[in-house]
Amino acid sequence: MRFHSRTSSAGVVEQPFTLGEVPGVLWTPEGARGTRPLILMGHGGGQHKKAPGILARARRFAAEGGFAVAAIDVPNHGERPTAPEFDRLAADYRARVRAGEDTASLDTALYTLVVEQTVADWQAVLTAVQHLDHVGGGQVGYWGMSLGCALGMPFVAAEPRVRATVLGLQGSPVLTEAAARILVPVQFLLQWDDELMPRAQGLALYDAIGSTEKTLHANPGRHGDLPRFELDDTLRFFARHLG
Amino acid sequence: MRFHSRTSSAGVVEQPFTLGEVPGVLWTPEGARGTRPLILMGHGGGQHKKAPGILARARRFAAEGGFAVAAIDVPNHGERPTAPEFDRLAADYRARVRAGEDTASLDTALYTLVVEQTVADWQAVLTAVQHLDHVGGGQVGYWGMSLGCALGMPFVAAEPRVRATVLGLQGSPVLTEAAARILVPVQFLLQWDDELMPRAQGLALYDAIGSTEKTLHANPGRHGDLPRFELDDTLRFFARHLG
Repeated sequence: MRFHSRTSSAGVVEQPFTLGEVPGVLWTPEGARGTRPLILMGHGGGQHKKAPGILARARRFAAEGGFAVAAIDVPNHGERPTAPEFDRLAADYRARVRAGEDTASLDTALYTLVVEQTVADWQAVLTAVQHLDHVGGGQVGYWGMSLGCALGMPFVAAEPRVRATVLGLQGSPVLTEAAARILVPVQFLLQWDDELMPRAQGLALYDAIGSTEKTLHANPGRHGDLPRFELDDTLRFFARHLG
Repeated sequence: MRFHSRTSSAGVVEQPFTLGEVPGVLWTPEGARGTRPLILMGHGGGQHKKAPGILARARRFAAEGGFAVAAIDVPNHGERPTAPEFDRLAADYRARVRAGEDTASLDTALYTLVVEQTVADWQAVLTAVQHLDHVGGGQVGYWGMSLGCALGMPFVAAEPRVRATVLGLQGSPVLTEAAARILVPVQFLLQWDDELMPRAQGLALYDAIGSTEKTLHANPGRHGDLPRFELDDTLRFFARHLG
């Protein structure tokens, strides 16, 4: 694990890193020493490890929750090279969204292309980050919406170190099997008027989650319109389960 | 408004009252002076103003939130006389629940029997309570599950003094029209495995609510199994909107 820089602002230290071929960022509270809970944050489709939503949540989790937070670029995103097959699918996806057409089959194709690599990447990053003195082997949570949920579900299902997860903005039936293997507490966010994920599919995916503690939070609005107060709830959810 | 007694424990003052034919209870923080937000709490079917769930929530809202809280016995419940027609319906309802049969049509009949009177009772109690020095004319919220939601929806829809509401455990189609007239922020609680309210009807009732800010919280479990952490969320919801 190589760190490239270290900057600090508003009480949060930001350290971009590379682990093998995986570019990532670690955020920790300024002056952090010793073990603390760690949140892994998976970005959405077309986004990257420092997309505005990721950055805002990561800084708040570190500053207000005292968490360590790590984000990575998933395959074909951010600083990582894109495979020609992915480029074709992504262009097709954008064209369908513009035309108001269904994108569910492409979600599955995009997911299938990168899911195995992403799970392996997250497991390697988790191991490496927990070796750092100011992170350590504490409780681990995973946060991911949309593509971050699609890639997060198989990761959370496979990874016993993850003890709580916030997922959502997803309903792809290809995730049903992974969802059923998730047994840790889940907060699942759904946008009632999501133009990319049919409501019934989102509800079915929540239903498929295997956990006995799983809370669905639904709000009016489109895919990108998660209300601000859900971030407050997410922070409390992680504090309750990992704190 | 006649008060019958005044007891105090664990920082909360409890004052049973009668207003006309309506028996109620007012809870306020010990030493309360001046205007504060007020929560009106509607009990469930077969329950009353001091049912254990009402009492626990009321005491916590007063002690932790600094709210005034009022509960009443709705018609045919608690200390109020029961009409023969209501007795017949209630016996039929209990028999159907024991037999695992559908109760939706009886919900509607029970609701229709008392809704007008209940809305008038709540409006009178709200006016009277807000004349008290240690309550005053502050922001008002309404909390009610199950029958408390069925009777609460028309009340909240009709009463501009109510500024935020927590409702749920309901899905009766007879409420659709009242739900559509609710425009204040709503938190709507749904039990995913509710044996009394079909899931699809609960989701449809949430969908019908007219408010732009309305959050659905769903959790696994039966009608009576609301998880404890939802009470924390309710307290924060009211604090955010009425505080």
